[in-house]
Amino acid sequence: MAGGGAVKVYGAAASPYVATVLMCLEEAGAAYEVIHLDMAAREQNAPHHLARNPFGTIPAIEDGELTLFKSRAISRYVLRKYSNAGGGADLLREGNLEEAAMVDAWLEAEAHQYHPAISHIVRQCVFLPMIGSARDQRVIDEHAGKLREALRAYDALLGERAYLAGDFVSLADLAHVGFTHYLMRTEYAALVEERANVKAWWERLSARPAVKKVAALMPTADI
Amino acid sequence: MAGGGAVKVYGAAASPYVATVLMCLEEAGAAYEVIHLDMAAREQNAPHHLARNPFGTIPAIEDGELTLFKSRAISRYVLRKYSNAGGGADLLREGNLEEAAMVDAWLEAEAHQYHPAISHIVRQCVFLPMIGSARDQRVIDEHAGKLREALRAYDALLGERAYLAGDFVSLADLAHVGFTHYLMRTEYAALVEERANVKAWWERLSARPAVKKVAALMPTADI
Repeated sequence: MAGGGAVKVYGAAASPYVATVLMCLEEAGAAYEVIHLDMAAREQNAPHHLARNPFGTIPAIEDGELTLFKSRAISRYVLRKYSNAGGGADLLREGNLEEAAMVDAWLEAEAHQYHPAISHIVRQCVFLPMIGSARDQRVIDEHAGKLREALRAYDALLGERAYLAGDFVSLADLAHVGFTHYLMRTEYAALVEERANVKAWWERLSARPAVKKVAALMPTADI
Repeated sequence: MAGGGAVKVYGAAASPYVATVLMCLEEAGAAYEVIHLDMAAREQNAPHHLARNPFGTIPAIEDGELTLFKSRAISRYVLRKYSNAGGGADLLREGNLEEAAMVDAWLEAEAHQYHPAISHIVRQCVFLPMIGSARDQRVIDEHAGKLREALRAYDALLGERAYLAGDFVSLADLAHVGFTHYLMRTEYAALVEERANVKAWWERLSARPAVKKVAALMPTADI
């Protein structure tokens, strides 16, 4: 969606970090437009983008007078502002101390247990081949072991509840989608598929309209 | 503080992650007790701790019926529950969409720009020597360059406002304290001291009673 009052998202939808923001905008039912940055030309480091984000990363957004960077900060902002106003899914649960705390804990698990493993696998198996570089199998093997270990804990948890933070979908789940979307297009999809509870959770997330819509913007060529 | 209704914090105060939680408890004026885990014996991976935290990291807390892990999730929970109830400093600013968004953005900057650089320097210069291991100067040099680069952006920002998220102290600032406390006890304190605005910010943070109280629990031997 676009329009005069639309949230401007600077980046590229192929980025898992941008995808998280777009899923939140879709879940919240907010109007937005993606303003593509030319990453190959390193536009993210050009002065006009550094004015939005001093660290030169994507995504950044503009919403009226507010300029904001970092996908999680943007996601929280979007969900607080637009879900609350528009009746979108309550993905932060900030009205309940304990539920909000579990959302936060599993957002951090994504950052510190899941992402450090999966991001290397996706970089090697998906992103490097996209730009014509060869993958390093040793890096993949090392991080596949770490991801398998993390997914063991996830599987145990997801045997007890439908989503990471409880029996409700939350930003903690959505934060896992961007990289997992790409992983599932490699042979390392097996790491998810070998864990029945993780697999069922992934299928529940993949079926969400917001996730389907954003996934359609991400490169889909078989790897 | 301790007591029947006190928050139980499992870990070791020497950990920068535990220190963040303790600072939040102090800022909020909440009663707590630290229950020391024997990290040398890898007690964090024992079944009784894995029941608190499936990933075997510290800190974890118990507060009544709630068990919670991950320092940032715990920090948010503590500040929401106890600052709001007890009149502690408003370190999350969740009552203001834009201010809360800036707190979140600079928490993420800590996670993705500051921490990846400073944590290696502190590990090499402080934690490895504590256990009798030699430091690797190449690792230090590489990350000192990255930290210097991040602090350039911090210094520009802190020339415009007193704290990272605005002219108010927040969790985003406190999240930087644990590792910076140790950095300032090495020769790499110069990276902070060479930036006038960063140095002044650090001095403002260091002067907070909550920070002084927790810093006194962290190892202080000159490195």
